[in-house]
Amino acid sequence: MAEKITPRTQDFSEWYQDIVLQAKLADYSPVKGCMVIRPNGYSIWEMLQKELDLRIKKTGVRNAYFPLLIPESFLKKEAEHVEGFAPQCAVVTHAGGKELEEKFVIRPTSETIINSMFAKWIQSYRDLPLLINQWANVVRWEMKTRLFLRTTEFLWQEGHTCHATLEEAELETRQMLRVYADFAEEILAMPVYWGLKSEREKFAGALRTYCIEAMMQDKKALQAGTSHNLSSNFAQAFETRFLDKDGKQKLVHQTSWGVSTRLIGGMIMTHSDDKGLVLPPRLASTHVVIVPILSNEAAKPLVLETCEKISQAILESNAVMSLPYSIGVHIDRDETKQPGWKFHEYELIGIPLRIEVGPRDLDKNQVVITRRDEGKKEFIPISTVPSHVASALAAMQSDLLKRARDFRDANTHSVGNYSEFKQKIENPGGFFTAPWCQDPVCEAKVKEETKATIRCLPLDSSYGLISESAGCLVCGKTEKTVKAIFAKSY
Amino acid sequence: MAEKITPRTQDFSEWYQDIVLQAKLADYSPVKGCMVIRPNGYSIWEMLQKELDLRIKKTGVRNAYFPLLIPESFLKKEAEHVEGFAPQCAVVTHAGGKELEEKFVIRPTSETIINSMFAKWIQSYRDLPLLINQWANVVRWEMKTRLFLRTTEFLWQEGHTCHATLEEAELETRQMLRVYADFAEEILAMPVYWGLKSEREKFAGALRTYCIEAMMQDKKALQAGTSHNLSSNFAQAFETRFLDKDGKQKLVHQTSWGVSTRLIGGMIMTHSDDKGLVLPPRLASTHVVIVPILSNEAAKPLVLETCEKISQAILESNAVMSLPYSIGVHIDRDETKQPGWKFHEYELIGIPLRIEVGPRDLDKNQVVITRRDEGKKEFIPISTVPSHVASALAAMQSDLLKRARDFRDANTHSVGNYSEFKQKIENPGGFFTAPWCQDPVCEAKVKEETKATIRCLPLDSSYGLISESAGCLVCGKTEKTVKAIFAKSY
Repeated sequence: MAEKITPRTQDFSEWYQDIVLQAKLADYSPVKGCMVIRPNGYSIWEMLQKELDLRIKKTGVRNAYFPLLIPESFLKKEAEHVEGFAPQCAVVTHAGGKELEEKFVIRPTSETIINSMFAKWIQSYRDLPLLINQWANVVRWEMKTRLFLRTTEFLWQEGHTCHATLEEAELETRQMLRVYADFAEEILAMPVYWGLKSEREKFAGALRTYCIEAMMQDKKALQAGTSHNLSSNFAQAFETRFLDKDGKQKLVHQTSWGVSTRLIGGMIMTHSDDKGLVLPPRLASTHVVIVPILSNEAAKPLVLETCEKISQAILESNAVMSLPYSIGVHIDRDETKQPGWKFHEYELIGIPLRIEVGPRDLDKNQVVITRRDEGKKEFIPISTVPSHVASALAAMQSDLLKRARDFRDANTHSVGNYSEFKQKIENPGGFFTAPWCQDPVCEAKVKEETKATIRCLPLDSSYGLISESAGCLVCGKTEKTVKAIFAKSY
Repeated sequence: MAEKITPRTQDFSEWYQDIVLQAKLADYSPVKGCMVIRPNGYSIWEMLQKELDLRIKKTGVRNAYFPLLIPESFLKKEAEHVEGFAPQCAVVTHAGGKELEEKFVIRPTSETIINSMFAKWIQSYRDLPLLINQWANVVRWEMKTRLFLRTTEFLWQEGHTCHATLEEAELETRQMLRVYADFAEEILAMPVYWGLKSEREKFAGALRTYCIEAMMQDKKALQAGTSHNLSSNFAQAFETRFLDKDGKQKLVHQTSWGVSTRLIGGMIMTHSDDKGLVLPPRLASTHVVIVPILSNEAAKPLVLETCEKISQAILESNAVMSLPYSIGVHIDRDETKQPGWKFHEYELIGIPLRIEVGPRDLDKNQVVITRRDEGKKEFIPISTVPSHVASALAAMQSDLLKRARDFRDANTHSVGNYSEFKQKIENPGGFFTAPWCQDPVCEAKVKEETKATIRCLPLDSSYGLISESAGCLVCGKTEKTVKAIFAKSY
């Protein structure tokens, strides 16, 4: 029945695609570059969205919704912004049976349309800070797409805030970076490096872009979230001004920040294995599948009854367990499928825990529990199943993070010599910290010769760049040289 | 500070617009016909979405996400569908800097793109029923728009299901109609009539459309939700077939059903008054605002401390109260605004309960509590505030529904004489039940001469049309004559 999953060692990219398609997380659509997010994938997005939304709201941000269509002229108001996004835009030229007087682009991001409203809503310092977030779909016409990681249309949240000063905008930018970093680690169990993007890699229209970067199992980097200090760039273009306490009209300072359905791809490439999806319990809606072993006709009623009792006991334990979510349980009573087939199926779709209930174990008052990530069978007395389930789920969540962090740390190397770098970036690959003189020429040379890019510039505790006394990896200059993380990326 | 709200009796349409704009629920955008949903309005959408999503999922439906863009050729595959929707479509002709070989329309609804996937996913009867829902934005180019009620872009959910037989599809269609009707009454406190749409009013591509219809305070009807039995119309166009148990390839039978941000407009026009928004507690995120009276400098610390204690007591009571939601509380400590100004403001934005805490009442160990819908001040001992709040919120929710139902029932009339109908539809207006011969000619005549339409054909307990022995309102024929509800509508 089930197709075979390409092993990671054979072809990482095929492996990834096999998981996404076979676990029914997403599918290719008839619209080039656009994917369909299937229920198994969308339920992960729903969990992720719920958790992140809570964290965003805790910082005082409120959700709103702005138009999908942006007048083409708006995009052009900020010079760098239009240069960055115009080539990727989908353009609506006709509507309601007529050619439009002004064309619309489908939002690739919403800074411009949102600023047109901010300019209307903001009058005085009393209206600041204005903290808005939007959950929405965006469209960027991409040449090379990959399910979840890079699609023409994707789902995301985009935060947009206005502040009285650049300093406040900077604090907001950093705060949201921390929200993303904590969220990635706590919920996705995906460890991230965070830092500043180089000028070349920053958002089109930003003063400064911060990012979180994760390492996938093929040792490539995935940009998992960005937070931009926009300064007054868009405020200038849209005249988003306020009357300050000193009686003067001033431009607001802004931030924007976003994460997208790409996170699902990152989570898959961080944890999954050759058997299928490995899902951190905090992203699961069904945490436990109970598979009754029904081969013995006489024992069937007792086996099914025990499954029901165990399910009830787990569900009832939700009220007293200290997990930050309610455990979801599914009993698979389907008699047309063999237990072995079911085991494979639930491994493929990534149910965190499997409980086998068979007549022989029932004689000993026990069941078999298997964690998806470890695959080891454990014999657990029926009376302690609920507490075992809760602790196994908590342990799985933290073990996944630890395993991913250990992997990343083991594959992050310090390097000071360019020829050594050129060799090692090919084999063994990974992340490389190295000194960089901040010259875009050196940065471009690395990209051209190795396809690696600067993923971020790590920061010290006061968000300053970290000076390096050694010379630049490429040119050897020691002036202005700072620590950078290089890697090949998605 | 606050602008004046036009009274309902003076201009209902202006009143509605004043409420939406002044309560900051939504705003006009620079994109013609598109609105911006502001945080006060979006939080209502979030509550509504959460409640409806739970109810949809309880019936076994799972959420997914399909592309925004639909190849133009897809729309044309179902003849009635393209005729109904093509004139309203926004068309993408260019993308990524090039003219596209095939144009895309922005989804006005997703039957076609979803069927292209269903055709791929469904192989056998084992894959049925397939029950999918999508929360998404859609675009329909409208001539005349009105905030929430009719906008070029709107947010909605669209359910799409596949079944082995027409009977099963019919049961699903009816089930979702009931979900909508119950949801409208329990959550929005908006009573609805439900029934079948006439052939003329049904969805483009459906065999049969059911709907729920609500009466606004101006006695006009609002179509608040629809549920369509699509039969095999789209399955035929997209060859969505399955291998049945009898070994034969058969077309699936489908349903689709949706409600949108229009519901927010309906809720406003059902309950609100000349002071502003009246929000059913089940749609509020902040249920109680506590306003300290700070005019007496010496009493200030005690007043503020009492506010804090009351807030804590209400929040703690959430654990033991039987309300289906957690009560949200806000203390307004702002000293730059007078209590009177605040009272107006919170009435405008529709906080269900207001608690005034002033020094004179504190001497008597009491506070003043006012329900937004009634406006009567009640003196409540501080110790009983939490239980009073819980019961006042529950009472407000059910009173709003009762008041709206009484209003609707009082303005629903039975009429058998066409000249009487023509007169009464103008004055006093309302809903009119009348016999109709099912001839579209009579239906069209009513619309042309009175602007009223058939809102729905009420159904008996087995979902059959209700025969009328009296002759058709228009032509007097008694053959095939059934009960219909006529009204002017939004």
